Amino acid sequence: MPPTKRSVYKVLGTRPIRHDGLDKVTGRAIYGADVTAPGMVWGELLRSPHAHAEIVSINYRNALEMPGVLGVITHADFPRHDSEEMRRGATHIMADEKVLFKGHPVAAVAATSRNIAIEAMKHIQVEYKILPAVMNVADSMKPDAPLLHPTLECDHFGEIVIGSNIASHIAEGIGDIDAGFAKSDLVVELTTTSQMVHQGYVEPHNATALWDESGRLTISSSTQGMFGIRTQVAAMLAVPESRVRVNAVEIGGGFGGKTLSYLPTVAALLSRAVHRPVKMVMDRPAVFEGTGPASGSEVTAKIGVTNDGKLISAHVEMTLEAGAYPGSAIIWAVPSSFAAYDIPNARADGYDVLVNRPKTNAYRAPGLPQVAFAVEQAIDEICDRMSWDKIDFRIKNSSREGTQRVNGPRFGRIGFVETLEAARSTDHWASPKPVSDNRWMRGRGLGVGYAPHSGGLASAALALNKDGTVSLTEGSQDIGGTRASVSMQVAEVLGIDAHSVIPVIPDTDGIGYTDVTAGSRVTNVMGVAAYLAANELVEKLKARAAVVLDSESDAVEFEDGVFSVTGQSANSIPFVELAGRMDETGGPVTSTGSIDHQGDTNGYGVHICDIEIDRETGKTNVIRYTALQDVGQAAHPSYAEGQVQGGAVQGIGWALNEEYVYDADGRMENPSFLDYRMPISMDLPMIEAILVEVPNPLHPFGIRGAAEVPIVPPLGAVPNAIADATGHRFLEAPIKPSVILRWLLEDKPE
Amino acid sequence: MPPTKRSVYKVLGTRPIRHDGLDKVTGRAIYGADVTAPGMVWGELLRSPHAHAEIVSINYRNALEMPGVLGVITHADFPRHDSEEMRRGATHIMADEKVLFKGHPVAAVAATSRNIAIEAMKHIQVEYKILPAVMNVADSMKPDAPLLHPTLECDHFGEIVIGSNIASHIAEGIGDIDAGFAKSDLVVELTTTSQMVHQGYVEPHNATALWDESGRLTISSSTQGMFGIRTQVAAMLAVPESRVRVNAVEIGGGFGGKTLSYLPTVAALLSRAVHRPVKMVMDRPAVFEGTGPASGSEVTAKIGVTNDGKLISAHVEMTLEAGAYPGSAIIWAVPSSFAAYDIPNARADGYDVLVNRPKTNAYRAPGLPQVAFAVEQAIDEICDRMSWDKIDFRIKNSSREGTQRVNGPRFGRIGFVETLEAARSTDHWASPKPVSDNRWMRGRGLGVGYAPHSGGLASAALALNKDGTVSLTEGSQDIGGTRASVSMQVAEVLGIDAHSVIPVIPDTDGIGYTDVTAGSRVTNVMGVAAYLAANELVEKLKARAAVVLDSESDAVEFEDGVFSVTGQSANSIPFVELAGRMDETGGPVTSTGSIDHQGDTNGYGVHICDIEIDRETGKTNVIRYTALQDVGQAAHPSYAEGQVQGGAVQGIGWALNEEYVYDADGRMENPSFLDYRMPISMDLPMIEAILVEVPNPLHPFGIRGAAEVPIVPPLGAVPNAIADATGHRFLEAPIKPSVILRWLLEDKPE
Repeated sequence: MPPTKRSVYKVLGTRPIRHDGLDKVTGRAIYGADVTAPGMVWGELLRSPHAHAEIVSINYRNALEMPGVLGVITHADFPRHDSEEMRRGATHIMADEKVLFKGHPVAAVAATSRNIAIEAMKHIQVEYKILPAVMNVADSMKPDAPLLHPTLECDHFGEIVIGSNIASHIAEGIGDIDAGFAKSDLVVELTTTSQMVHQGYVEPHNATALWDESGRLTISSSTQGMFGIRTQVAAMLAVPESRVRVNAVEIGGGFGGKTLSYLPTVAALLSRAVHRPVKMVMDRPAVFEGTGPASGSEVTAKIGVTNDGKLISAHVEMTLEAGAYPGSAIIWAVPSSFAAYDIPNARADGYDVLVNRPKTNAYRAPGLPQVAFAVEQAIDEICDRMSWDKIDFRIKNSSREGTQRVNGPRFGRIGFVETLEAARSTDHWASPKPVSDNRWMRGRGLGVGYAPHSGGLASAALALNKDGTVSLTEGSQDIGGTRASVSMQVAEVLGIDAHSVIPVIPDTDGIGYTDVTAGSRVTNVMGVAAYLAANELVEKLKARAAVVLDSESDAVEFEDGVFSVTGQSANSIPFVELAGRMDETGGPVTSTGSIDHQGDTNGYGVHICDIEIDRETGKTNVIRYTALQDVGQAAHPSYAEGQVQGGAVQGIGWALNEEYVYDADGRMENPSFLDYRMPISMDLPMIEAILVEVPNPLHPFGIRGAAEVPIVPPLGAVPNAIADATGHRFLEAPIKPSVILRWLLEDKPE
Repeated sequence: MPPTKRSVYKVLGTRPIRHDGLDKVTGRAIYGADVTAPGMVWGELLRSPHAHAEIVSINYRNALEMPGVLGVITHADFPRHDSEEMRRGATHIMADEKVLFKGHPVAAVAATSRNIAIEAMKHIQVEYKILPAVMNVADSMKPDAPLLHPTLECDHFGEIVIGSNIASHIAEGIGDIDAGFAKSDLVVELTTTSQMVHQGYVEPHNATALWDESGRLTISSSTQGMFGIRTQVAAMLAVPESRVRVNAVEIGGGFGGKTLSYLPTVAALLSRAVHRPVKMVMDRPAVFEGTGPASGSEVTAKIGVTNDGKLISAHVEMTLEAGAYPGSAIIWAVPSSFAAYDIPNARADGYDVLVNRPKTNAYRAPGLPQVAFAVEQAIDEICDRMSWDKIDFRIKNSSREGTQRVNGPRFGRIGFVETLEAARSTDHWASPKPVSDNRWMRGRGLGVGYAPHSGGLASAALALNKDGTVSLTEGSQDIGGTRASVSMQVAEVLGIDAHSVIPVIPDTDGIGYTDVTAGSRVTNVMGVAAYLAANELVEKLKARAAVVLDSESDAVEFEDGVFSVTGQSANSIPFVELAGRMDETGGPVTSTGSIDHQGDTNGYGVHICDIEIDRETGKTNVIRYTALQDVGQAAHPSYAEGQVQGGAVQGIGWALNEEYVYDADGRMENPSFLDYRMPISMDLPMIEAILVEVPNPLHPFGIRGAAEVPIVPPLGAVPNAIADATGHRFLEAPIKPSVILRWLLEDKPE
């Protein structure tokens, strides 16, 4: 699949209205909370009020006797698993002997109404024996810290350790960092901390499940991956995958957080108990306390540079909160910590550390914003100390095709240099930096970010309609506009317009297996599956054209939406007309495409941020923001820009405002959107998104993913702007008004 | 596709529980009446109380002002069509200048509840000018009869006639019937009449439609063909087919009557008017009066035979009620009137005659029961008069491979002789005839029947699951167990069991075009599409097996569910195991199959019926009934038997009890299941179904259709049994107790 030249595209790069747009703006799209089923009842979870406690007993007799209460389940209703990992997974969904975080489910009720179910919670008596909780990585790593999982087999750099809260310690490296630092003319080392943050999707988790008497389980749930839910639920409940049917209703945001099954398993067990469809919808506190936020972190970056401006050695040590169960962010972050830079001696160490908080999950590029908060400030500090231009220095040291990564492989064609060069050419970078005055301290920062993009499995199917439209069935849930971006690739192949492709996302029984919508993969990988299906459709239509044109399939060619006999351009029939003659030339024309995409695709972003800080309150306003990103070929530029803008906003929130605030007993104090401070449109200027297009050689149209990269650079750009404005490097995120105010009042040198 | 030998089948011919069985017996299957949508409102139709009237005016102002009433539509809300046929079709759905039958829709209301909508009907004032109505074909064909459609272009044997109630007159013939009758030693001629009957499906018609602001129309409706509804609605509302999405919910019976769109178009127009999803569900009177029953008839059969027992000449003249709009039953019935017999001189004339009754629609084998009522009694009469054995005579004169039909073509391999021979061998035929006594007159009758089976278009898609199951997506609505019968064909190809295939029927956007579930076609035609998809899946899996077995695709063979390298039977991998290695060998495996089935498939049935008639009441009880039918290869014998039994019961009801009863003003007097007398299980003995399997050469497994044939023979067998019991030939159906009683009291010779 050699990349096709940009200039020939007719559909890609245009901005048609998304296929699902009208349904969504008019409120007609069906989300999980809209699902109903005949005989449906409500399920609710009773959650632990303690961060760490033994469950001594659960007595739900009184609850069961309440009118309208149909059933109660506890962990005892889960199947017994042989594997300790599966057993542990089941205790995450519903606690067994111990609760490990405030909000940990301990029982669930099914009742005829939601209010009855909520009321019934009060009549379940759970006796706890409270245990000391560890709420941060520093406490958790102490030798005498209370253990969350005393029997957990922890992987400490390949060695199995029992009796640790460090669930794993992994590392990757090339060269010799000590030798590198010895040769360095300047070494900057700094340690940052960041707090647990939530993806903050608007739609709470939900699930409606029916476990029928034949053992067949039907689930509707908001999820990033219906097949992933199928796999997880089937494994957890010990039923064959094909007995589980998952219908992925519309999703109101995910960002990585809707990849795990919290409610479907519980709703299924309740349904089995009460023989009715059971619906569950979380409230906002449950979302904050009971789902998978991003890890709080402690990251030390140590970077060495020579006087001639070459990065020569670097080490990053990241300690990431796992939450109450082992996490996976370090697996993503360790190999990618220095993916933006070409450094001959580099090493990344990652520690996944258990704390009595919710089990973390992906949030766009997992682990990478936390690392960028340290690394990009260290790079910035180097440039400041050496008075080097911050873009020129990065270009000089940037990863490019052939650069070796810390985990071994070399990069293919990437567009980081082009993105940096584009940043240098922006009006923003060229314009004068904002100037401080008596009320406002002002400054400008730059940060870069990287994310790897997932490959994996995808399936698509096409059916031609007589009016020249094509129905596209795809296995990927659409979160950010992929109905459009995948349909456009089909349209490009077939020479029709984007709205002549009708995208459909069926349930798991209606299409071949497809991996989760995550890892910036859908437009890229599902795009290839759809591209293959479209090409198969073209081949089948050549045979139909041959009937009409009185020729042979082999002699028919297809170009610009027209089938013609090779060498006889007048003997031709347009795609739409041939579709109208489908019946008479042999009946329906359908095709499928599937792929195991092994490609290593990489994305880079460069953000420029101007801020002003109120000297009286310490409040930071972002006053101008430009985000550049290499997206390969932009399938639908508006939606790629939307990804860049949305990611930037989330990164800004992470840097400036958002955090889980816990009290002394490990209870979250701000589990609502009133108190958990996400930036909204009124807080920010328009984010200017600039797409750079360096074609991805592993995609037929050169498309890369776009979704994860943009959350990373703000963790560099925003603090670097604050440092520029204040002359001080704030190393604790969020850099909230109180932090700046304290510095202004107490620490600022006069 | 040469037929495979029966003995090798592992799945076909077995009786697994149907895939949708549990959902249906537990009430969980979603039918049209279960459909809900956010913001949904109710629609109801105001129907004409008159059989024939001009609409002078419609005033719905008062209705619109009622609280809860959101909108009213009339014919004026339909698009204007250029074609007179389309305009006439639109007036069928909602009357324009005239109402043509009692129950004809004249307006529709959308309201927030069903009761409000019903109440609103009372506040719509329609001023009618009543016209004389014609309620039967005899009156309708009179020269001075009131015309239903004064401008209709009637096709009278090829000539266009304006100003007739005979919508069309067609004929087919071979040989010279007059010469044939002249050479006959015995000519029997008789004229039968039968009454309009309804299919009597349990589930009323329904539709829920949303016409959104972008012009996209989404419809859920109980229908035999979601693509057919899409085509009809798109044409009627003048929108492109691809802007209409039809979701075929479960169907509670159809029998041909759920092929036309009554409610979807109206619900769509209401939705456009009120900007909400609109749901409509008929009540039983609306079903009887406002949908498409089978034609009442007057049929004259004249049959000549020689003394040596050969049929030599035959003529049938059928006059079928079209209802208020042109019908299509004669198109089916004319060429098939004598399809059971090899007669050198034969002709069938069909008259489609307009009357002020609902427009007729298909009911199993359209038109053929009415014809069989005459023809099979004439054949029976010949045998009675000549003292010939009724099976031997039919075998001697039966159609077989090579017999020429009245419309030209010759039969391929058919199984009529084998079915007659099987009937002769039954215990029923061999057992003594029931004997009359003082209370009961008893007798035995035999009748045969034929139905042609439709070919046409079908699409299927398959996706392999890792646990060795296969998801089957098919475009045919399942009425009689075709999820099972099609899945079994996939299972047969793949060497897995029937329940390892998971059948899914998506909406019209989710699969390639597929013709309606009618004409006994699904198990046959969709079976071929699924067979092709399964074979494509096998081919794709050979490539995967080659990876595992370290060989080449071309060298891999598949037999008995095992892939092996040719000549190395030990170097093999079973299907299920290979499915589990799908991911590592290249990712998802999917396939599609589609077909334009041109095959001419034919089915025959032979029924034997014992009855007893109460001399006091004239009531006829069926006391033993055996139904034999050639179904080719029975995919799932229980469901084929069920078709045979159900069809036989419907035919018995048609012969003995069912009829539309009209008062003098053309109003149906019995539009409920209390008064419209269908036989129920307590009325009948077990119908013994015997399947004869003469493989269909046009299907890879030899499958024929099964659904239509069995309604035809009862119209011969039951009256012939009554004639045997009474010595009198009753020529008016239904042969109800009052008819027999009148004969017993008034006409019976002492």
